[in-house]
Amino acid sequence: MDSASIVNKLRAIAGAGNVVSDREELVCYLFNARSRELSEHLPAAAVQPHSAEEVSEILRFANEHAIPVIPRGQGSCLSDNTTIMREQTIILSLSNFRKIEVDPQTLTAVVGPGAVTAEIKAAAAEHGLFYPPDPASFTYSTIGGNVATDAGGLQCVKYGTTKSYVAGLQVVLPNGEIIRCGGKCIKDVTGYNLTQLFVGSEGTLGVVTEIILKLIPQPEGKKAMLAAFADVDSAAGAISRIMVSGVVPSIMEFMDNPLIRAVEEATQSGFPVDAAAMLLIEVDGARNTLDDQANKIRAVCEELGAVHLHIAATDEEAKHVWDARRMSLSALYKKARHRLSGDPAAPIDRLGDELRKLQELGEKYGIIVGCYGHAGDGNVHPCILFDTDDERERAHKLRSEFHEFIISIGGTVSAEHGVGHEKIPYMERQLGKAQLKVMIDVKKAIDPKNIMNPGCMFGEMIHE
Amino acid sequence: MDSASIVNKLRAIAGAGNVVSDREELVCYLFNARSRELSEHLPAAAVQPHSAEEVSEILRFANEHAIPVIPRGQGSCLSDNTTIMREQTIILSLSNFRKIEVDPQTLTAVVGPGAVTAEIKAAAAEHGLFYPPDPASFTYSTIGGNVATDAGGLQCVKYGTTKSYVAGLQVVLPNGEIIRCGGKCIKDVTGYNLTQLFVGSEGTLGVVTEIILKLIPQPEGKKAMLAAFADVDSAAGAISRIMVSGVVPSIMEFMDNPLIRAVEEATQSGFPVDAAAMLLIEVDGARNTLDDQANKIRAVCEELGAVHLHIAATDEEAKHVWDARRMSLSALYKKARHRLSGDPAAPIDRLGDELRKLQELGEKYGIIVGCYGHAGDGNVHPCILFDTDDERERAHKLRSEFHEFIISIGGTVSAEHGVGHEKIPYMERQLGKAQLKVMIDVKKAIDPKNIMNPGCMFGEMIHE
Repeated sequence: MDSASIVNKLRAIAGAGNVVSDREELVCYLFNARSRELSEHLPAAAVQPHSAEEVSEILRFANEHAIPVIPRGQGSCLSDNTTIMREQTIILSLSNFRKIEVDPQTLTAVVGPGAVTAEIKAAAAEHGLFYPPDPASFTYSTIGGNVATDAGGLQCVKYGTTKSYVAGLQVVLPNGEIIRCGGKCIKDVTGYNLTQLFVGSEGTLGVVTEIILKLIPQPEGKKAMLAAFADVDSAAGAISRIMVSGVVPSIMEFMDNPLIRAVEEATQSGFPVDAAAMLLIEVDGARNTLDDQANKIRAVCEELGAVHLHIAATDEEAKHVWDARRMSLSALYKKARHRLSGDPAAPIDRLGDELRKLQELGEKYGIIVGCYGHAGDGNVHPCILFDTDDERERAHKLRSEFHEFIISIGGTVSAEHGVGHEKIPYMERQLGKAQLKVMIDVKKAIDPKNIMNPGCMFGEMIHE
Repeated sequence: MDSASIVNKLRAIAGAGNVVSDREELVCYLFNARSRELSEHLPAAAVQPHSAEEVSEILRFANEHAIPVIPRGQGSCLSDNTTIMREQTIILSLSNFRKIEVDPQTLTAVVGPGAVTAEIKAAAAEHGLFYPPDPASFTYSTIGGNVATDAGGLQCVKYGTTKSYVAGLQVVLPNGEIIRCGGKCIKDVTGYNLTQLFVGSEGTLGVVTEIILKLIPQPEGKKAMLAAFADVDSAAGAISRIMVSGVVPSIMEFMDNPLIRAVEEATQSGFPVDAAAMLLIEVDGARNTLDDQANKIRAVCEELGAVHLHIAATDEEAKHVWDARRMSLSALYKKARHRLSGDPAAPIDRLGDELRKLQELGEKYGIIVGCYGHAGDGNVHPCILFDTDDERERAHKLRSEFHEFIISIGGTVSAEHGVGHEKIPYMERQLGKAQLKVMIDVKKAIDPKNIMNPGCMFGEMIHE
């Protein structure tokens, strides 16, 4: 079907004012927070529906004519999840789905996929409630994107990722049917857990139009600290030891020396620029437990030879540290023209091996690798920096070799960003042929015409 | 294929000593903890394989010849999940898969589906670790069954159900392929969340042969209390209020008067037999938080007019209370020849309506309904007691009307026992036609010949 007919139909469904069809505006949809390579096709149109019923009409139309549909939030994804498109693709923006209704009586919130995660956190906090997941992007990413990728974040080491808080979903299926999975009952085993099948499916199975989130009581207080180490091994050892100490930190972040320097340059936070590695740790809970928790962690760090230890005196001081930490990725932008970043994770007892391997590979390929991340989950973000074409080739080789390693130690190539288009080459290696086939069979069962974000997660395997 | 050929093949795969084929022994497999109506068919054989490879061979054979296979644990299921069988069914017992390997370095345990849940808890505790899910059956039910039904329990109100602790699975697919989903990485978004698709699938998608469980640190201490109320409404009000008070109790159980009396008769625990309703509550965590948590709950109970309040002085006293609570179902066995029990749940703000409706319906149909359950989750276990055939008919009408009500208030007909064969009639009403079709499509995609526990969960819908 030609673009003009698609645009006309979308205008009829969603209203002319909610359909973007100018080339100049459509170009925006080729960009996201990653955007390494721009898609060769412009979308046919971008539509901003206002209701699940309009989404249903759009999908019914798209399904009938086998037109690709990519649901889109804020474009803050980091694995090329939404910007590589086929001819005549419809971009389905959820920006009008911004509802946030906190229900303190059931400890839940009913939200639209277009609501910004920070706004949900703030709305919950007004009732003394807490929505824990906090991807670094939470001040601008939307909950729909967070659900589509099962987004993680800093506090997930204690509280779990987005999936742990999704109690129910309204989903429009590729055939236009509107379903509700799960609900406000915290326990529900009537049938398969479709809710968790849609969470993390990166827009490949349908369009989420409403989310029921589980909330928990706000912790009474928190305490942040910083520990610096003269070598990466000691830091990794401290992380593993803290995780099995009986204290569950609410945040346990790692930064290596290139990162400490980059962030310090960008933020002047007083970070120890000579340290090989730094841990940023927070504990939370009942106020009369904070000192005890902090002291246990301090003892482990001292035993592992921390060269610098500082406990934040005030919440403001702590907030400054976390804001600086969230600048990691952008601080690195200044260090090289290009970068490959990632979100691998290893089982927590292999974190030291993971970090050592990155250092080794950096040396082997003569490439700077900065590394930070959610170390308490074994999840780091290696940033492979490069400028020239020659370096680019080495950077890709480095990443490829690292991903092979991470799979070989029982790790995962994606802990929180999703597969997108970027990690498709590693799917079979990590999952095995038989498991990958189950995923493809499930995809085909729910989206037989492969209209939902085609190419994402499975690439061309879906046609094999 | 005739039974003798099936038996011969199973003997060749698993060894003659691991195949049961005598009628007298096979009859045992028609029974479970529910066993209201015995299946009209005896199984062709029961096989006890020793490895995933043997399971793979069995399923490959069964799939080739379209022979039904029912995986079986201890038979402690409560929704007729495994005992209604078709002709020539193979019972696949996981009793030889008893491995329990706690890995304190990664806070996980790798276990076989045949391991008893209580033994896993004990093994974790030896390392100061905690596996929280505690279905009332946990001293005899196996983790495989717990995973198959996403079993709940008393402590799930704070800690979540079985699914929250399943980090990875080894599954043998109906076609005999062996896959590994998830793993020891706590965060992993590479592909769809198949792990959670298999959890709660009641043996309809494959055979789980290994489970990686997430463990958490043992709470430092706990404190139990008992609060009695003169009417059910006040108890329900107290539950809702406690759940939004900021304290998250580790247990919050409800018992109505018929239950209090039955349990007291059976256990002489000193329960207040004149109370209309009783709450059994526990808080846990750091020792210096217990009094504060307990006092907040006590204040709510007093405000709601509790007629009796008692805080257990010792852990032994508390244990005695919990042991008595776990006797609820068997205590009721003495009260009538037959019973219908269930595991519905309502959103926590509708718990009062749920309990009132049960009382109303008991009066309407002239049937005794005892009620207990995990009230902090909105999940109760109504026990509809009857002796005569006339009462039986009224009991079924009562349950049917109650399930319609629970669905109408956004609840679920099954919070923790599973659909089995018992709740199939409510599937479409609760899930809607379109969602049910997705589940059936997923089942067909993974098990196209419908060999895995056929009839369970979807009944005859799978052939429509």
